[in-house]
Amino acid sequence: MLGSTHGTLTTDSRRARVIACGEQPGPAVHGRPADVDGMDVSGRPLYADVPDLERFFRPESVAVVGASDAEGRPNTGITRQLLAWSKRVGARLHPVHPTRPAVFGIPCVASVAELPEQVDLAVLLVSDPLPVIEQLAETKVKFAVAFASGFAETGEEGAAAQARLAAAVERAGLRLLGPNTNLNAFEEFRDDLDGPAIALITQSGHQGRPVFSLQELGVRLSHWAPTGNEADLETADFISYFAERPETGAIACYVEGLKDGRAFLLAADRAARRRVPVVAVKVGRTETGARTAASHTGKLTGADDVVDAAMRQYGVIRVDALDELQDTATLLARAKPPVANGVAVYAISGGTGAHVADLATTAGLDLPSLSANKQAELHQWIPEFLSVANPIDNGGHPVGDHRGRKIIDAILADPSVGVLICPITGPFPPLSDRLVEDLVAAAEETDKLVCVVWGSPVGTEQAYRDVLLGSRRVVTFRTVPNCLKAVRAYLDHHRFTRDYRSPFDQAPRTPSPSFRKARELMRPGQQLSEHAAKQLLRAYGIRVPREQLVTSAAGAVRAASLVGYPVVMKASGADIAHKTELGLVKIGLTSASQVRDAYRELTDIARYEDVALDGVLVCQMVAQGVEMVVGVSHDALFGPTVTVGLGGVLVEVLHDTAVRVPPFGETQARDMLTDLRGRALLDGVRGRPPADLDALVEVILRVQRMSLELVDDIAELDINPLIVLPRGQGAVALDALAVCR
Amino acid sequence: MLGSTHGTLTTDSRRARVIACGEQPGPAVHGRPADVDGMDVSGRPLYADVPDLERFFRPESVAVVGASDAEGRPNTGITRQLLAWSKRVGARLHPVHPTRPAVFGIPCVASVAELPEQVDLAVLLVSDPLPVIEQLAETKVKFAVAFASGFAETGEEGAAAQARLAAAVERAGLRLLGPNTNLNAFEEFRDDLDGPAIALITQSGHQGRPVFSLQELGVRLSHWAPTGNEADLETADFISYFAERPETGAIACYVEGLKDGRAFLLAADRAARRRVPVVAVKVGRTETGARTAASHTGKLTGADDVVDAAMRQYGVIRVDALDELQDTATLLARAKPPVANGVAVYAISGGTGAHVADLATTAGLDLPSLSANKQAELHQWIPEFLSVANPIDNGGHPVGDHRGRKIIDAILADPSVGVLICPITGPFPPLSDRLVEDLVAAAEETDKLVCVVWGSPVGTEQAYRDVLLGSRRVVTFRTVPNCLKAVRAYLDHHRFTRDYRSPFDQAPRTPSPSFRKARELMRPGQQLSEHAAKQLLRAYGIRVPREQLVTSAAGAVRAASLVGYPVVMKASGADIAHKTELGLVKIGLTSASQVRDAYRELTDIARYEDVALDGVLVCQMVAQGVEMVVGVSHDALFGPTVTVGLGGVLVEVLHDTAVRVPPFGETQARDMLTDLRGRALLDGVRGRPPADLDALVEVILRVQRMSLELVDDIAELDINPLIVLPRGQGAVALDALAVCR
Repeated sequence: MLGSTHGTLTTDSRRARVIACGEQPGPAVHGRPADVDGMDVSGRPLYADVPDLERFFRPESVAVVGASDAEGRPNTGITRQLLAWSKRVGARLHPVHPTRPAVFGIPCVASVAELPEQVDLAVLLVSDPLPVIEQLAETKVKFAVAFASGFAETGEEGAAAQARLAAAVERAGLRLLGPNTNLNAFEEFRDDLDGPAIALITQSGHQGRPVFSLQELGVRLSHWAPTGNEADLETADFISYFAERPETGAIACYVEGLKDGRAFLLAADRAARRRVPVVAVKVGRTETGARTAASHTGKLTGADDVVDAAMRQYGVIRVDALDELQDTATLLARAKPPVANGVAVYAISGGTGAHVADLATTAGLDLPSLSANKQAELHQWIPEFLSVANPIDNGGHPVGDHRGRKIIDAILADPSVGVLICPITGPFPPLSDRLVEDLVAAAEETDKLVCVVWGSPVGTEQAYRDVLLGSRRVVTFRTVPNCLKAVRAYLDHHRFTRDYRSPFDQAPRTPSPSFRKARELMRPGQQLSEHAAKQLLRAYGIRVPREQLVTSAAGAVRAASLVGYPVVMKASGADIAHKTELGLVKIGLTSASQVRDAYRELTDIARYEDVALDGVLVCQMVAQGVEMVVGVSHDALFGPTVTVGLGGVLVEVLHDTAVRVPPFGETQARDMLTDLRGRALLDGVRGRPPADLDALVEVILRVQRMSLELVDDIAELDINPLIVLPRGQGAVALDALAVCR
Repeated sequence: MLGSTHGTLTTDSRRARVIACGEQPGPAVHGRPADVDGMDVSGRPLYADVPDLERFFRPESVAVVGASDAEGRPNTGITRQLLAWSKRVGARLHPVHPTRPAVFGIPCVASVAELPEQVDLAVLLVSDPLPVIEQLAETKVKFAVAFASGFAETGEEGAAAQARLAAAVERAGLRLLGPNTNLNAFEEFRDDLDGPAIALITQSGHQGRPVFSLQELGVRLSHWAPTGNEADLETADFISYFAERPETGAIACYVEGLKDGRAFLLAADRAARRRVPVVAVKVGRTETGARTAASHTGKLTGADDVVDAAMRQYGVIRVDALDELQDTATLLARAKPPVANGVAVYAISGGTGAHVADLATTAGLDLPSLSANKQAELHQWIPEFLSVANPIDNGGHPVGDHRGRKIIDAILADPSVGVLICPITGPFPPLSDRLVEDLVAAAEETDKLVCVVWGSPVGTEQAYRDVLLGSRRVVTFRTVPNCLKAVRAYLDHHRFTRDYRSPFDQAPRTPSPSFRKARELMRPGQQLSEHAAKQLLRAYGIRVPREQLVTSAAGAVRAASLVGYPVVMKASGADIAHKTELGLVKIGLTSASQVRDAYRELTDIARYEDVALDGVLVCQMVAQGVEMVVGVSHDALFGPTVTVGLGGVLVEVLHDTAVRVPPFGETQARDMLTDLRGRALLDGVRGRPPADLDALVEVILRVQRMSLELVDDIAELDINPLIVLPRGQGAVALDALAVCR
C-alpha cells in the first residue's frame, strides 16, 4: 500500500453540492446557524456540512468484498488485519466472495446483495470497485472504502474512471473513502493514553506513518483518515468531523492537493469556531502558478501564495516538513490555552540560555524580563552572579537538590510567564536526571505549558525515554527550532481563535445595488476600455478622476474646461495596455492649445501603432499620493482572490504584494497592508504625510465585493495605479483594466 | 563546569600582534607566503599565524596545579579524570600542591618551580591562576589551561582581572586556554572510528556536548577545544590549527562572541584555502547594533548582518541551532567532493518523493530530470506507470528483492547526479530493512554522497541504530529540512572553495597616490562639507558633477556658465544634513537670473535656519539613472565595512542593502548587487536601459580602498545618491557625507 502520489481531482466547485450525510443524526454541531443551506452572493456555500463519520470509524457491521484466506494473496493479509480490527471495535464482519464458502472460518456471501444484514461499512478489496458501488446502492450501506489504485493518480484515463466512480457513489447515496487508499483507518491505536488526542488526515499512508508512530512516544492519536484520491470524502470532511469530537486536541493533515478550496475553508472555519487547531503540510511550495494574466496583480500572485493566505485567514497552521507537523500537533493537542504570552527560558548553562533566547526572539517569541521581586526570589536558590532576568541561568548546581523544583515553581508562578522552555543540551545525569523529574512533576501541577528540548542526538537515555516521554503534560522536543516553531504556533493559534469572527457570517448573500449597473458594462470575453473599467469602479463607489471621453480636438478642449485645468489626456480603447510606453498619455496640459495639440498627437500615434481607439480621455490631474495596485485574480482552487501591492516600479521589481481569499473582513484588509514590506511608504517617509489608510481599506473591501458579485462576469481586474492621498483625502483610481469572462 | 556565558573581550585589534607560537616547529603549512608578517594598508595582518597545538592536545608531560584526592573536593574528580586521560595519551602527570606529599599515589611538588621536568602543559585548578602564570614564566611551559571562573563573564571587574591575566600570559611566553573553561579537551574520544573527523571548538562546554555525543552515533571526532573566555587562545587559533590537520573533515564551532574579527577571517581564509569546511553557530541574531550613525548606510547595517556577510565572504557555513551544526558538520566531514551538483530523490512512495522534491527545490537544490535512457533503464525494475524522472518513485515492491540495489546503482551511475537522498518516512521492515542494507552497501562502492532521512520519530529501530549508524559512508538524518540544509551547504562549500582566491593575497599593502591628497582634506573630529567630501571622492577617482563653490551671486552666475546650464545649486557647509527638506537645494536652473535668485534664496534660508555656510555649490545637472547609496561604516569587531543599497525612498523604506567586510575582490563586489532585492532596477525595468554595473562595481572597490587607506581618518562615509547612468556612461556621486575621526 505504498501507493504513488494521490490523484485528487481539483475542481473549482463554485456551487458545491451540500451532501446529505446519512440517516443517523450528526453529533451536536456547535454554533451552526439555521440557514445551513445558505449561499453567498457568489453562489458558494456559507457553511460546511459535517458528515457523521461515527459509523465509519466504529461500525457495528462490516462487509469485506474480495476477502481472502488463500496463502500468498495480498488480500489475505488485509482480510486478517480487518478481522483483528473488527474484533477490537466489536463489529460483525461479513466476507463477500463469489466462490468461497467461508474465509477464515466465517461464512461468505457471494455478493453484497446477499449480505445477512444492513452493514455500516463495505471494504472493497476488488480491483474495480465501480460495479460493487452500484450494487451497494440497494443495500443502504453508509460507507465504503476502495483500496484499488489506477485512478486519477495515473493520468487522464484514470481521472475519467474516478469521475465515473464518484458519480456512482453519489447515485448510491453512500460516502466513499478512496480510491487509492489503505488500511490506516483500521490500525490499532493505543488505548492506554488519555487526554486530548491528535486526529490525523493524510492523503498518503506512508506520509502519515511518523505521526502515527508518535504513539510510541506517548502521544495519543484518536483517528487516522487516509483520504487517498478523494473521489468523495475529502480532507475537509474529516476536519469538520474531527473538530466536533470531544477528544480532539489537534488535527494534523498531510495534503498533496486540495479538492475544493471553499470546502477546505469552511472546514477550517468550523475548527476555528471550536478553537480546534489544524496543523497542515500542503505540498506545492514550488508549484509555479501557470497562469497567464493580463493584469499585474494576476502575474504577481503564485498559486501557493494563495494557499498560504487562505490558510492564514482561517487559522490553519501551515508547516513544511513532517517533523514539524509531528512536533507542532503534539504541542497543540496537549497544551491548555495560554494564560500569558510570555516565554521563560530556563537552562543549566548561561550559554544555552542565551543561545535559545536569541533563537526564540528571532522566532517572534516574547521573553519578558522578570520583575525585580521575582529575580530576588530566584536568587534565594541561584547564586547572585548568575542572570535570572530571562533567560534564567541556574549555573547547574541548584538543579541537583531541593532548590531545583522551587526554581521551576517560582518561574511558573510568574504572571508574565505562559510557557517555560527548558533546553537540556547534553545529558549530565547527576543534574539532568533530577531536572527532568522536577520538570515532569511541576508540569503536573500547573496549567501552564512546560516544554523540554532534549538536545542529545542519541535518544536512548533513560531520562528521555522513560521520564520525559512518560509525562502526559510536558511536551518534549529533540531540536530547539521545532520547539520554538511549535510554541509560536500555539500562542498564535490561541490569539487567533480568541478574536475569531467567522468571515462567512458576514459574507454578502445578495447583490448590492451596484451589481445591476456593473452588469450593463460587461462585454463577455473582452477587455474593457479604460473608460468602461473606470465606470465599473465608479459603480462600486470607487473614486476615479473627473474625466470625459471625447472624439474630437474641439470636444477635448470643451472637456478640459469642464474637468478643470491642468488635465491629463490618454488614448482610450478596448485593447490598449502599456499606454505610457507607447506615448499614449500626455500629462500636465494647461491650455486649450496644448489640449488640441495633444489630441492630434495621440490620435496620430494610435494610427501609427495601429491601435483602435474609442476616443481620448480628458482627465482631471490628481494630487500626489502613494501609488498602489489593487486587483482581482482567479485562482483555480479558491476562485476570486484580491491582491494589493505597492505600485509604480516597485510592483514590478519587488513583487511586494499581499493576497486574500474572499470572504474576508476589514481586519484582514488592514492586515494585508501590514504584510507589505514597503508598508512604511503608506505611513509617510521623508516628511511626506501619512496616506489615507481608511480609504485604501475601503477600496479593498469594495473590490472584494465586486469580485464576489461579478464572479461569473469578471476574469481579472486591476487598478493600477490607485493613488492614495494624504489622510482624510481619499484614494483615486487613476487607471483600471478589466477582463470580462 | 556548567559555566555561565563566556566573557570574551571583544577587541578591535587593528594592529593585532603576531604571536610567536612556541619553540617547536609548526606542522607543514599549506601555501603560506614568505612575508607572513605582512600587513595591509590598514595596518592589519594579512596572514594568520598557526599556533602549534600538537603538544597541547598530546603533551608528553603535564602539571596539575591544585591536584587533589581528598574525598568530596571538586578538584578530586577533575584530577581523577586528568589521570585517566594522561594514561590514555601517554603523558607523565605531575601533581602540584603546596602541602600534600602525594595525590593518588603520585608524588607532589609544592610549586611549579619545583617540577622535575619541563612540562608541555600546566592545568590550573586554582581559583586564582594569575600568580601561577607568573611562576610558569620561569619554567618554559608551552601551554596552560585555567578552569577558574569569575573573569570577564561576571562584568567589569572580572574583565579587568582577565586583562591582567592575558598580560601575564603574554609576558610568560606561553599560550593559555581559558579562563572559565573545563575538561572537554581531555575527554575520551572513540578511537575505533576512521575516516575524516569533526574537530570541535566551543566557547561553552555544555553547548558542545551534543556534537561530542555524535560519536555514539558513529561519527568520528578528533578534538574538542572549549575556549571559554579566550583571554589568549581563541576560536581562530583552533580553526587555523585544525585546518592543517590531515584527519580534519570539518570544523564545527559554537561561538558566543568573536574576540577579534580579523583573526577569525584569517583563520577562515586558511580553512578555505585548504578546502576544509567550517560550520559555525554564532549567537547574536537579535543583537541590536547599538551604533549611532549620521550616514544612512551606517544605520542600515546591523552588527549581525556584518557577521553574516563576513562569514559568507570567507566560506564559513553559518547555522542557527545545535542540531543543524551536528548534521551539517557530519555531512561535510564525511562526504567526498561532489562530482555533480544534481540531487536525486529516491523514495518508496510517490507522495514522499514529491514532498521532499518540493522542499529540496525550495531549499535551492537542483533536481535534474533524468534522461530518457536512464528512465528506461530504471523502468526495467520499476513499473511503467510510476514516475522515475526525479523524484524517483519505486512504488515499494522492487525494494524487497534484487531490483532494489540495481535501482540505487543505476541512479548513482547517472552523470547528472552527485547526491542521492532517500527519505524513509516510516519504517516498514519488509521493505525498509532491505532498502537500508542496499543503500549502505551501494554507498561503500561510490564516491557520491548517499543521504538517508530516517523519518520515524521513535529511533530505536534496528535498521536505524545498527545498519544506518553502522555505516561510515551513508549520512543519516532524522529530519528532511536538516538533510536539505546540509546538502545545500555541502554543494555550496565545494563550489566556493573550488573558485576560492584569498582576498588577502590581493589586499593593498601600500597607500595609493590618492591617499596623500585625501589626507589633506581631513578635518579631525568634524564632518566635511559636501564640497570637501566630493573632493575626497574625486581624489579616489570617483566621478562627481562639475561644480564650483561660490560665495556671491555674481560668482554663481560665472560658475553656472562654466559648469554649463541647466545647473543645480545647493547650500554647502560642514554640518548640513537633510538639505532637501530644508529647501537648501534648487534644481533645473536655466538662466543667469534664475541662478541669481536661487543664490539669494539659499543664503536667506541658511540665515533663517541658522546654518553656517562655506558657500553655495553650483553643479552640473546629471542625467537620469538608478539612484544607489554606497557607504563606509565602522564595525566594532571587523573594522571598516562597505555597504551598497538602493537609494532614494527605497533605502529608507526597504533597507535593501548589502554589506561586505574588506578586503574583498571584484567578484564579491558584484555579488553585493545580486544580494539586493531590488536588483532588477539595475537591469532596467519598464523599458529603461540597463545601468552601468561595471562603473558601480568600480565605485564600490574604490570606496573599499578609501575605507582601508583612511581607516584612521574616516569614521563614516556615505555617497547618497550615487547616480548609476546607463551602461557605458558611468556613475556620478551627486552628494556625499564624510565624518572624520
